Amino acid sequence: MLRVGVIGGSGYTGGELLRLLLGHPQVEIAQTTSREYGGEYVFRVHPNLRGLTSLQFAKPDLEKTVKECDLVFTATPHGVSSKLVPRLLEAGLKVIDLSADFRLKNPEGYPQWYGWSHPHPELLQKAVYGVPELHRSDIGKAQLVACPGCMAVASILALAPAAKERLFEEDKVVVDVKIGSSGAGAKPSRSTHHAERAGVIRPYKPTGHRHTAEIEQELNWVAGSGAVKISMSAHAVNVVRGILATAHLFLKEKIGLAEVWKAYRGFYQNEPFIRLVRDKKGLYKLPDPKTVIGSNFCDIGFDLDKHVNRLVVLGAIDNLMKGAAGIAVQNLNLMMGWDERTGLLPPALYPV
Amino acid sequence: MLRVGVIGGSGYTGGELLRLLLGHPQVEIAQTTSREYGGEYVFRVHPNLRGLTSLQFAKPDLEKTVKECDLVFTATPHGVSSKLVPRLLEAGLKVIDLSADFRLKNPEGYPQWYGWSHPHPELLQKAVYGVPELHRSDIGKAQLVACPGCMAVASILALAPAAKERLFEEDKVVVDVKIGSSGAGAKPSRSTHHAERAGVIRPYKPTGHRHTAEIEQELNWVAGSGAVKISMSAHAVNVVRGILATAHLFLKEKIGLAEVWKAYRGFYQNEPFIRLVRDKKGLYKLPDPKTVIGSNFCDIGFDLDKHVNRLVVLGAIDNLMKGAAGIAVQNLNLMMGWDERTGLLPPALYPV
Amino acid sequence: MLRVGVIGGSGYTGGELLRLLLGHPQVEIAQTTSREYGGEYVFRVHPNLRGLTSLQFAKPDLEKTVKECDLVFTATPHGVSSKLVPRLLEAGLKVIDLSADFRLKNPEGYPQWYGWSHPHPELLQKAVYGVPELHRSDIGKAQLVACPGCMAVASILALAPAAKERLFEEDKVVVDVKIGSSGAGAKPSRSTHHAERAGVIRPYKPTGHRHTAEIEQELNWVAGSGAVKISMSAHAVNVVRGILATAHLFLKEKIGLAEVWKAYRGFYQNEPFIRLVRDKKGLYKLPDPKTVIGSNFCDIGFDLDKHVNRLVVLGAIDNLMKGAAGIAVQNLNLMMGWDERTGLLPPALYPV
Amino acid sequence: MLRVGVIGGSGYTGGELLRLLLGHPQVEIAQTTSREYGGEYVFRVHPNLRGLTSLQFAKPDLEKTVKECDLVFTATPHGVSSKLVPRLLEAGLKVIDLSADFRLKNPEGYPQWYGWSHPHPELLQKAVYGVPELHRSDIGKAQLVACPGCMAVASILALAPAAKERLFEEDKVVVDVKIGSSGAGAKPSRSTHHAERAGVIRPYKPTGHRHTAEIEQELNWVAGSGAVKISMSAHAVNVVRGILATAHLFLKEKIGLAEVWKAYRGFYQNEPFIRLVRDKKGLYKLPDPKTVIGSNFCDIGFDLDKHVNRLVVLGAIDNLMKGAAGIAVQNLNLMMGWDERTGLLPPALYPV
Repeated sequence: MLRVGVIGGSGYTGGELLRLLLGHPQVEIAQTTSREYGGEYVFRVHPNLRGLTSLQFAKPDLEKTVKECDLVFTATPHGVSSKLVPRLLEAGLKVIDLSADFRLKNPEGYPQWYGWSHPHPELLQKAVYGVPELHRSDIGKAQLVACPGCMAVASILALAPAAKERLFEEDKVVVDVKIGSSGAGAKPSRSTHHAERAGVIRPYKPTGHRHTAEIEQELNWVAGSGAVKISMSAHAVNVVRGILATAHLFLKEKIGLAEVWKAYRGFYQNEPFIRLVRDKKGLYKLPDPKTVIGSNFCDIGFDLDKHVNRLVVLGAIDNLMKGAAGIAVQNLNLMMGWDERTGLLPPALYPV
Repeated sequence: MLRVGVIGGSGYTGGELLRLLLGHPQVEIAQTTSREYGGEYVFRVHPNLRGLTSLQFAKPDLEKTVKECDLVFTATPHGVSSKLVPRLLEAGLKVIDLSADFRLKNPEGYPQWYGWSHPHPELLQKAVYGVPELHRSDIGKAQLVACPGCMAVASILALAPAAKERLFEEDKVVVDVKIGSSGAGAKPSRSTHHAERAGVIRPYKPTGHRHTAEIEQELNWVAGSGAVKISMSAHAVNVVRGILATAHLFLKEKIGLAEVWKAYRGFYQNEPFIRLVRDKKGLYKLPDPKTVIGSNFCDIGFDLDKHVNRLVVLGAIDNLMKGAAGIAVQNLNLMMGWDERTGLLPPALYPV
Repeated sequence: MLRVGVIGGSGYTGGELLRLLLGHPQVEIAQTTSREYGGEYVFRVHPNLRGLTSLQFAKPDLEKTVKECDLVFTATPHGVSSKLVPRLLEAGLKVIDLSADFRLKNPEGYPQWYGWSHPHPELLQKAVYGVPELHRSDIGKAQLVACPGCMAVASILALAPAAKERLFEEDKVVVDVKIGSSGAGAKPSRSTHHAERAGVIRPYKPTGHRHTAEIEQELNWVAGSGAVKISMSAHAVNVVRGILATAHLFLKEKIGLAEVWKAYRGFYQNEPFIRLVRDKKGLYKLPDPKTVIGSNFCDIGFDLDKHVNRLVVLGAIDNLMKGAAGIAVQNLNLMMGWDERTGLLPPALYPV
Repeated sequence: MLRVGVIGGSGYTGGELLRLLLGHPQVEIAQTTSREYGGEYVFRVHPNLRGLTSLQFAKPDLEKTVKECDLVFTATPHGVSSKLVPRLLEAGLKVIDLSADFRLKNPEGYPQWYGWSHPHPELLQKAVYGVPELHRSDIGKAQLVACPGCMAVASILALAPAAKERLFEEDKVVVDVKIGSSGAGAKPSRSTHHAERAGVIRPYKPTGHRHTAEIEQELNWVAGSGAVKISMSAHAVNVVRGILATAHLFLKEKIGLAEVWKAYRGFYQNEPFIRLVRDKKGLYKLPDPKTVIGSNFCDIGFDLDKHVNRLVVLGAIDNLMKGAAGIAVQNLNLMMGWDERTGLLPPALYPV
């Protein structure tokens, strides 16, 4: 059994990781830490785990983590893991980081998008960006994997095949994202107070969203281009879980649906967690996060708009699963050489 | 007291009209009809009106309507009012149509976007498109006013000032719309069944939405251009009331916020139902339909994205108010020469 | 114009009061105070009022309030208004208190239910309990009115007619209440964080709810009895506004629906804000808060359970209206000798 | 591998069964039928199963079912399975019925509560009522198991320990139930239309709910009494999944919390799917369906009300799991002699 740790286990991503790891047949949870809840039972914070574990949160203690764990998930706020990870790597542990601290290859991205300088820019090249559909082989060899941002992964997966085929005008890529409240984390504030947050269609970040940086990085890598620029706007909508990324792409040439199908089928064939959803009938013709809640799937669909020669691509995920804890466990499986789907098999709950 | 009728009073738009008209000091509701609920008390269908009216739905009878009414609202399904309105006009009544039947100036738009030929194309020029912010003076003189589509009015009002100043590339205008379930009307179906509809972020019309036609018509009129083409995608989100239109505009030239402010302030100064929302602080910095529910306001805000030289404009309305019944009453007031705000004064409910 | 003040105007009750008072034809809002938002524009806190008022919150200053106002609403946390009200009364102002500080007649109720001793027990007899359906005439003569608790008013109005007729066993009165999140106020916490609060059916106060005291006080007064004891349990459900009180009453004798109708019709005839809802057909046969949102109505309905000789009575209100600000304005109207319905006419929004 | 069939696989209970059976290591789904969707892919109706099964619905054909299956789940509307089950039993199949058709032991209950006479009253004694916590041993030997009603199981499990100890007055047992929209099934209607159903706190069955019969049957069995009578009222609330049963019990004698704990701990020790939830701290002190969504747990908690000598007991379940498909799979495991938890291990999703 692999001894895994979860640093920052009391947030929603941490809780989802613990839920998945408890059901994973090849790991044992050696420890989980929380600054706020050190000493408290895990089930007091994650009530779904009541009766399933007697684990308690430990107070953060890096050397204890080094001693007790073989692999560590860091589910800490942005800016924290970049201080912890060097010691973990030095001690020979594998690390799966769920914050933004190791996502960008270019150190200059951090002051530009996050407002701080990276303390260990030398590690950025060592880290592998943790989207298995793009970097599976590198993830398998990595000591440090940087899991993508939740909106980034939905956007990247929706756009990658079209980017690879360079189907669209690369400087006019609109990505209009809708996200549920769990994406804002577990810390209360006025903006997440139920009476304020319920029923919103709130444009909380119409420009300048930080995930823009990693989306551009990855799509330029896929396209072998430096020209992809993302016009991203993020909206908060009235659900707890779920992200829908709607990408509006202006096509360079007139193409038909068959060519789009070919690009997407080719890119994603045999991917265990990608479903192409473009059905001829039924209520569920296109991706909707409602149909992936609790699963690790990214559903991708598309439609062609002949009126303006536009390709609309839709990517739907559960932000706590494929957008965070689920993809992290998928990366774990790849890093350890296990079946990629281990611990990620239960279907989505529907309806919920 | 003006004797008004509401043909098709049992839907959500009809109900909202009846609610507003009951509180309007210069009208009496002479009759309301319903094919499904003829003979039934209005409060059995619109439970908020219980105790406030003993009105009953009449079965449709056009000659009775002609006799009893001075002005008629037609809140019927698309394709119905075009058959009723000619007789009403001939009899000298004023008509405010809430369907799509008289919105398009070009008769060819009907086969293209709606799939049927217009039976009275000669009336299309006579009808005034009922957006007071664009056609106030013509509405004041009109016998027939065609109220806009709910998503159309949010989009048009968000875009008109920028279109007038021709700030953006006119063939790459993305309008990503989010709408609540009341927009789908009162008729049950699998797609609106609560367990299916709750919690969705559903891309129900990523291309080809019919409102595209009227948005293009009006923006080309405002811009004095024929080049504006709209890339519209519509999403169903988890609210009952509310529309947010997010317009992504690629600017022709680099401009600053001051120029955007100037365009929008100039266009909308003294408008009673437009609020420009771009606040420096607080939770409500930008438009969100949650803050207009129950009111006739269209809140409009914007942000500049220097990264891609994009202008994001946001328009938020209550789809049953400014998107349907509220704007219809505003048009009524203009047609009758009354204060435009009559019967439309109560603020939005917040929080709700 | 009566000069009114709202002390504590930044909470949800304060915001709803300001919304109603702005539309009230016989008052002007002389001032509103807020400890947290002193100096801030009202519309920054209550976004529905943007464009409708340029009022700013004042910092609390009791002598300024005395000087500028004829009548004051105190919408402060429990325990605060009991310190402010004596000075306001002494200065000759009328006061409508929305906290619990003057609801109980028996000073011993405060240590028992609220955990503190009342600083001015002599004022408790002077205060009139502000339920017009029970104390209309006294309210008309009062200088100090204590508005009821939101769950209390729904429960009292549902039970009063049956209590007056002494239909039920008075020591086994189950009141099972369901309430929306706005009832918890505007202050964020983990329990009201959207991701935690959305989707709950949470028994947050199965026993010992403070409103028990005032419900018993009023029902014993109505019944002319000292024997009524309330078994109250409060649940948080997934709405923003709304309260449903379900009262389960064990009948002393077998009675028929006609007798129940007689008791309720007799008690509430001519009441402007009570609707008896027990319809034979349609979807809205019984009270549901969804049909009163935004209005001052209390809908009351009932059903007889012959299987166990039980009477189930249902009371539905909007907790911010009939449960707080609406009933406060109704009390204002009565205290000033105005038409009781002034400013309270707009129907509920439906659907919302 | 056991060959199982699901008759009536297109409803929500059928869909949940298919989800669970797909992940069950000891069964294969031999067939599933649907009158409405015969010939259609399962994933078109249950979109969470897309990519996980290529199963298609078969049209109902009882002889085909007999041939292809060893055990059948009947998830048909009330009144249907009583016609199918005799043939299935005769052919030697095991049957787990999810309708009401075999729940009542007394044939007279059917005309009284359901309005029809049972066509095979002789089978009622043969059927075992499928609540493992009460009838585990009999379920293990049964050929026919009748799964309980969703509200019934939450109520029975909440009340059984107190009933066994005969703690409460048996003729005054109030059970106030709150349920989500999936409990109404997959068939659209006005009452389940999203705009109507969203936001309700709707007393849809204040008296006369059919589950009363089975709750009384089981509690009288547990208590060894004939005196337990249930005062049940059912409310629809604004969630998709979840039931909370709030039982209000008037105690015969004054007892302390220790005695209640003893009764509940004793009754439920070692039960794999019962959690006693009465915590001293944290947000999750008492049962709330939100914390069991997707799991087979029934969370049970309680509180003592000294003011009126009342015991409040709370039972929370996911209506599609412990209230339907989950308990059905638990019964399957018992009937087959497998570990009771097989296929039911994944924790609840939280938050969702």
